[in-house]
Amino acid sequence: MLEVLAGVGRSGRTGGYRRDAWSGAELELREWFRQEADARGLDRHEDRNGNLWAWWGDPDSAPGVVTGSHLDSVREGGAFDGPLGVVSAFQAVDALRGRGFRPDRPLGIVSFSDEEGARFGVPCVGSRLLTGILPAERARGLTGDDGRTLAEVLRANGRDPAGLGQDEETLKRIGVFVELHIEQGRALTKPVGVAAAIWPHGRWRFDFRGTADHAGTTALADRDDPMLRYAQAVLAARQEAERLGVVATFGKVQVTPNNANAIPSLVSAWLDARGADEQTVRHLVAALSEGQEVVCESWTPEVAFPALLRDRLAAIAGAAGAAGAAGDAAPILPTGAAGAAGDAGDAGDAAPILPTGAGHDAGILASAGVPSAMLFVRNPTGVSHSPAEFAEPADCAAGVTALAAVLADLCGDAA
Amino acid sequence: MLEVLAGVGRSGRTGGYRRDAWSGAELELREWFRQEADARGLDRHEDRNGNLWAWWGDPDSAPGVVTGSHLDSVREGGAFDGPLGVVSAFQAVDALRGRGFRPDRPLGIVSFSDEEGARFGVPCVGSRLLTGILPAERARGLTGDDGRTLAEVLRANGRDPAGLGQDEETLKRIGVFVELHIEQGRALTKPVGVAAAIWPHGRWRFDFRGTADHAGTTALADRDDPMLRYAQAVLAARQEAERLGVVATFGKVQVTPNNANAIPSLVSAWLDARGADEQTVRHLVAALSEGQEVVCESWTPEVAFPALLRDRLAAIAGAAGAAGAAGDAAPILPTGAAGAAGDAGDAGDAAPILPTGAGHDAGILASAGVPSAMLFVRNPTGVSHSPAEFAEPADCAAGVTALAAVLADLCGDAA
Repeated sequence: MLEVLAGVGRSGRTGGYRRDAWSGAELELREWFRQEADARGLDRHEDRNGNLWAWWGDPDSAPGVVTGSHLDSVREGGAFDGPLGVVSAFQAVDALRGRGFRPDRPLGIVSFSDEEGARFGVPCVGSRLLTGILPAERARGLTGDDGRTLAEVLRANGRDPAGLGQDEETLKRIGVFVELHIEQGRALTKPVGVAAAIWPHGRWRFDFRGTADHAGTTALADRDDPMLRYAQAVLAARQEAERLGVVATFGKVQVTPNNANAIPSLVSAWLDARGADEQTVRHLVAALSEGQEVVCESWTPEVAFPALLRDRLAAIAGAAGAAGAAGDAAPILPTGAAGAAGDAGDAGDAAPILPTGAGHDAGILASAGVPSAMLFVRNPTGVSHSPAEFAEPADCAAGVTALAAVLADLCGDAA
Repeated sequence: MLEVLAGVGRSGRTGGYRRDAWSGAELELREWFRQEADARGLDRHEDRNGNLWAWWGDPDSAPGVVTGSHLDSVREGGAFDGPLGVVSAFQAVDALRGRGFRPDRPLGIVSFSDEEGARFGVPCVGSRLLTGILPAERARGLTGDDGRTLAEVLRANGRDPAGLGQDEETLKRIGVFVELHIEQGRALTKPVGVAAAIWPHGRWRFDFRGTADHAGTTALADRDDPMLRYAQAVLAARQEAERLGVVATFGKVQVTPNNANAIPSLVSAWLDARGADEQTVRHLVAALSEGQEVVCESWTPEVAFPALLRDRLAAIAGAAGAAGAAGDAAPILPTGAAGAAGDAGDAGDAAPILPTGAGHDAGILASAGVPSAMLFVRNPTGVSHSPAEFAEPADCAAGVTALAAVLADLCGDAA
């Protein structure tokens, strides 16, 4: 099913995807979501924060079991980060229906809006707004590269920016959230794993200011060139990260005026820093910030997913995943999902549990108190946020199998 | 007169100018040029390379005396770099007419197209095309940040890209060219000076390639991050330039994909390097290029302006400039321009002669064999290519006085 989306927002030159929130490509994916929901007779709507929902069963009858991910991408991203979780959600519903399963609680599929933050600089905008973590006023003023604010872009797309903000009505429908996602490192050696925790992580903008001047006529001694201080910061970030055992990256730079023959007046650069320990990450940023103008654009403390839910998923996914790993690409449900759940203590069959350095909507929901968990599908190269991102079809199928088993367990069968 | 242009293409936020070739702001300046020419009854036209001409006298009667500069700017540039030379040309014609002067040879005013190369990356496009230094085929394919080629932009503006290229008919009209320009360093301590030579200078694009990956999930040891190699190159360029006594600048950077949470796949950065000695500049670039993918985008060997013309200008400008320096802001012509020229050997009155690290259309013409010279107007701060670029009104007036005297001398008076 992922193949249907293969051409949307893909550069013919690089093979990379560009599916910025509210871009033409992303709107096409939203339309695809609506069609998939309609094709299955699911009750769909878009909430006031732009998140898409499709429900099997009445979402207001009881707190539901929700699964899904996001459809937007980083710029020059891959095909799996995001869409795999949404596609797998629809496929898991198909698998459940195929065996006559009827959920005893409402089962929802969600696609969160603007998870990557490629356009407006802040990730997980949809889930942060929903939970109230991102204030609506700040969201409305977020500005893209083209100078347009999120409010302007929403209006241009027929949405009302006044509707943004915490949405208790939608939130209370989510009894539990399970996000399936491609793993983004090489740590997972089985087809399917379960998330232990999301590392604390943040994004800081460094503004290196200097004096604009002519590159040919200004003596070296007369220069105040901010590019030099930026270069020193790039090397210092790497050195400090190695020393402290965390990761730190300057991956985005904006130079003013960005002329080949002008010393810049301003180099703005974004530092992404993450690690297992919050204090260590903050220590790294403090060391690099000394004497610099630095703005924290986002910060997410460590999210440890609830242990009981996590272990239950690991047991069920492990039992279901074994089938997928055996090379059977067709989603197969364990005959007794409830029985498998009872084996949660059996480490022999359990899916591996691993931490991740990547932020996810599941992390946002968890930090807002929604019981949440994640399933990871193996990434053989570990490459992600790149056109080279890849997962084996058999592993994706194992992911659907595991997800279906987990959903069956969490919903209970009313059939 | 420069004040009339003060608002065109100026950012209200930074005060910097953005007058990219063929942008709305630059088209407005072209219209201004036409109006100024018409107001004076000058014979104006645009040549096939987009350069604007206004003639006093029949340009085909004899090789003419041409003065002028350019109207486009670097991005976030100042008000003087370019327009001062065009405005002063019109003012010098006014001053000559005011005293009843009638040129014995045709006198032309020119505004060369796209001198800064802010949009398409190659400077002096208009004069390079005119002289045949830039092949038309290469010019047509030059591509701006917005992905549009020069050919496309010309067509959108009603110009025929097939007309680009060496233009002997226009070139043979230029018997001698004098460009007045704001000085771009602090070396000039008198109101007006004369250019000795333009340093050899060039522009090189460095493509640092790496492997795109997720900034949060990729271990430091697994990374191939091109930003680190770029940072090393920035610091090495400064160190080598200091050691070798030249200037070197990385002022423009483009990062792919330029996401805060992605290790870049590509960092493209432009090195501008200049110095008094060509071999030293080439040595610097070679040292930095080792093991790197580097493309030379432009290279201009040293241009030494013809010594006789240079010394003659220094003598005449010195004599005329003395009046301006005395605080008399109204352009005053020396009563006997021809007499002043006879004093060319008198070093006591002569304007200072100084080299420059900046490229100019006068340098392009000189390297194509057109007798060319430059007048510089003092820059008290030395700042250029910046909103802070400035020249005192009295010094600008002294520039007009000197230019008028020089033109009178070169044309001869038929009155």
